[in-house]
Amino acid sequence: MGDFTHLAKGKAVMVDVSLKPQTARVAKSAACVDTGGVDLQKTLSKEAQRELATTIRISAICAAKKTSELIPLCHPLALENVECFVQFKNHLIVIECTAKTSGKTGVEMEAMLGAAIAALTAYDMIKSKCPGATIRHIGLKSKEGGKSGVWKNTTKVMSL
Amino acid sequence: MGDFTHLAKGKAVMVDVSLKPQTARVAKSAACVDTGGVDLQKTLSKEAQRELATTIRISAICAAKKTSELIPLCHPLALENVECFVQFKNHLIVIECTAKTSGKTGVEMEAMLGAAIAALTAYDMIKSKCPGATIRHIGLKSKEGGKSGVWKNTTKVMSL
Amino acid sequence: MGDFTHLAKGKAVMVDVSLKPQTARVAKSAACVDTGGVDLQKTLSKEAQRELATTIRISAICAAKKTSELIPLCHPLALENVECFVQFKNHLIVIECTAKTSGKTGVEMEAMLGAAIAALTAYDMIKSKCPGATIRHIGLKSKEGGKSGVWKNTTKVMSL
Amino acid sequence: MGDFTHLAKGKAVMVDVSLKPQTARVAKSAACVDTGGVDLQKTLSKEAQRELATTIRISAICAAKKTSELIPLCHPLALENVECFVQFKNHLIVIECTAKTSGKTGVEMEAMLGAAIAALTAYDMIKSKCPGATIRHIGLKSKEGGKSGVWKNTTKVMSL
Amino acid sequence: MGDFTHLAKGKAVMVDVSLKPQTARVAKSAACVDTGGVDLQKTLSKEAQRELATTIRISAICAAKKTSELIPLCHPLALENVECFVQFKNHLIVIECTAKTSGKTGVEMEAMLGAAIAALTAYDMIKSKCPGATIRHIGLKSKEGGKSGVWKNTTKVMSL
Amino acid sequence: MGDFTHLAKGKAVMVDVSLKPQTARVAKSAACVDTGGVDLQKTLSKEAQRELATTIRISAICAAKKTSELIPLCHPLALENVECFVQFKNHLIVIECTAKTSGKTGVEMEAMLGAAIAALTAYDMIKSKCPGATIRHIGLKSKEGGKSGVWKNTTKVMSL
Repeated sequence: MGDFTHLAKGKAVMVDVSLKPQTARVAKSAACVDTGGVDLQKTLSKEAQRELATTIRISAICAAKKTSELIPLCHPLALENVECFVQFKNHLIVIECTAKTSGKTGVEMEAMLGAAIAALTAYDMIKSKCPGATIRHIGLKSKEGGKSGVWKNTTKVMSL
Repeated sequence: MGDFTHLAKGKAVMVDVSLKPQTARVAKSAACVDTGGVDLQKTLSKEAQRELATTIRISAICAAKKTSELIPLCHPLALENVECFVQFKNHLIVIECTAKTSGKTGVEMEAMLGAAIAALTAYDMIKSKCPGATIRHIGLKSKEGGKSGVWKNTTKVMSL
Repeated sequence: MGDFTHLAKGKAVMVDVSLKPQTARVAKSAACVDTGGVDLQKTLSKEAQRELATTIRISAICAAKKTSELIPLCHPLALENVECFVQFKNHLIVIECTAKTSGKTGVEMEAMLGAAIAALTAYDMIKSKCPGATIRHIGLKSKEGGKSGVWKNTTKVMSL
Repeated sequence: MGDFTHLAKGKAVMVDVSLKPQTARVAKSAACVDTGGVDLQKTLSKEAQRELATTIRISAICAAKKTSELIPLCHPLALENVECFVQFKNHLIVIECTAKTSGKTGVEMEAMLGAAIAALTAYDMIKSKCPGATIRHIGLKSKEGGKSGVWKNTTKVMSL
Repeated sequence: MGDFTHLAKGKAVMVDVSLKPQTARVAKSAACVDTGGVDLQKTLSKEAQRELATTIRISAICAAKKTSELIPLCHPLALENVECFVQFKNHLIVIECTAKTSGKTGVEMEAMLGAAIAALTAYDMIKSKCPGATIRHIGLKSKEGGKSGVWKNTTKVMSL
Repeated sequence: MGDFTHLAKGKAVMVDVSLKPQTARVAKSAACVDTGGVDLQKTLSKEAQRELATTIRISAICAAKKTSELIPLCHPLALENVECFVQFKNHLIVIECTAKTSGKTGVEMEAMLGAAIAALTAYDMIKSKCPGATIRHIGLKSKEGGKSGVWKNTTKVMSL
């Protein structure tokens, strides 16, 4: 288990990555929106479902590119790919987001922000019909690259 | 229960608010980060706890101001206040965010994005120590203003 | 015919709108991308056509909200609606964009930037297949509101 | 002739460039604004012409740096140079824009967005005097670098 | 003399302006760059001086519009005008910036940020020739509007 | 002493860095805010002082990442670290900012903008109590990397 590298000596700091090697990095995240009982596959036309899913995916890609603007201690990264998958399952909107870079630091936050904005965009677009909708979780599923190599999240919440 | 105003005729659209009256609006959201077992009050110095909490709060305020840049169908709003509260409780980071405006449309998304970025900033700052940390929920607690008046979320997840 | 209000006394200046009244404003623009011979309705699946059109429309809405960041002498405006329409006609992609606000200055540039970014997004998404694609025109079709009232563009290029 | 790489399997996607080599890239674009009959060299003082041209050029440089924020499926790129040239010729404003990078993907969109925003800034600054002004074309003139090597646009519209 | 309204109860907070009336606001700031001995009027051609001054002025206008993105506790404001003046005097670059709005809070920070970015842009553009150049001061000259009415800075540094 | 590389042939231009080698770069800047007589260590609680200092530091880090958006002729840079130090000394707020990258061009402007926004954030947060507060200087202390190697500022103003 590591240290709080962003709180060295009790101060909020960026991590100095100037001496780290550049390696290929991948991170996968997941998020889930609970509509509060509305089954979107039954309530929305096929066209509206596709439109909703496309808007969610585009918002995730655009957001991942803005990670270092929103998360104060993140480094700017040259993203090489962002992918987002969206599925409607009963009363849930299930989101996955993958980010890739070749860099000195990981892309966890890019993947996480992509999933978070995807979930918020979904919430925004259904909230007039589903005012009690809630984002149920956002978490990292796995990451690769850098000193720590491959890591997979084994907590229950992410296996949903 | 309303319609899917953002999916009129099966297309993703902004809602035309040009003919709506300008009213005072407030929205409150909540988010919760599960550290995965680490009690930050026991693990971090008082100074580091304060630094973490301040960084989280500042990130929420800055993010709320960027809502219309990130959520594709949101209108730009003249925010009149954003407040964020952060508490460390055992293995949880409990976040609340309030947004205010006088406008033709609500500030739900500003409050929600504030809480979401606060949660992501918290995750970013603890992830070297707590790699299995997860955002447990993000949801709207209440809103006021506009045609629908006062609304409170009564679902269980938000009472946590 | 007016003056060059942005070049008063030979200097590039914003126009001081502090004493102007706030009125309802609408502006409509059009743009056209020539694929260079490829008929997208024949070449792309229905699903890909919809996906292309949705991405173009979302990019227009997001771009219109960023107008004052990109056009140096534009005022920030509280946009009340942005709409974008996309049609594939033989070898053309025909784009229309409408912007609305209640403000002290017009929304022409918001409508124009929306159409321009829609056209550039279309170009970006087809350029691997249609390297010779070109944006054929971007222009204002009409505007309403403010001192000059209703104005319609009667030049030939816009009647295409 | 290539495929629609941004519409693989009918979905709008970024292109995964993680395995591509980094090469020197250059792209040149052109745009043309038709003032609708006004000859700026006769109507504007030398000082105002220079001020207009400088503002146009600066707007192009600043815009090219924001390409990945505006075009949803573009990768962020470390631009190494952006140049913009502006000429007033009778009733036309002729714009050229060149972008350079060393990267895994091309700079076409940076050059195109630079020229587009230059044209829109020109339109914005003359529209009070030339309300019927129109952007006549925006297109890629040439590009170098990457797998496809040197490419020149041979369509007529770009030879204007 | 007022309180530290941004540090109420020891926490960094936005000021809640929701109940304040909207009034006309003006703020004027000044900044000064010391070239470290180089007289730009003697060293640069007239054309280069104009180009430098125009770039500085445009950067100030664009920056003032981004104030609430950069200063964490600032409210977004609908700027109605930003003006910037630049003069070369011996080894000094003298900058003034004026911002106007009709709002619930003042435009001091917009005027200050405009002047600061103007000074930094000047520094950037001369630093290859004048590596020891320094920004000598940035300060508010006066403000009008709101509860406190007209205020003028009477400290010596600003009379330079 | 170098040339005005940003004003080649009398035009404001980016510097073409495409052929420069990538080297490790560091730049250190300093800024100083004069409160106009208020001793913050005596006037503010310890908690408020820390909160002020943290907000200032976070604003510097976030701003440095936005340098190429604000300074027209700056290249985008992959920042590898930004650090900001803040000290309250009698009636002064003393700020230092360090930026690091591995790139084809220097990080002076990132360090300078970090210090400038830190100073403006400080000014914003104390101005209700200290209306006559002024930024006293912003300057580069030293830089390393690139063709010119190590450089230290020896002018008096920076030794304050």
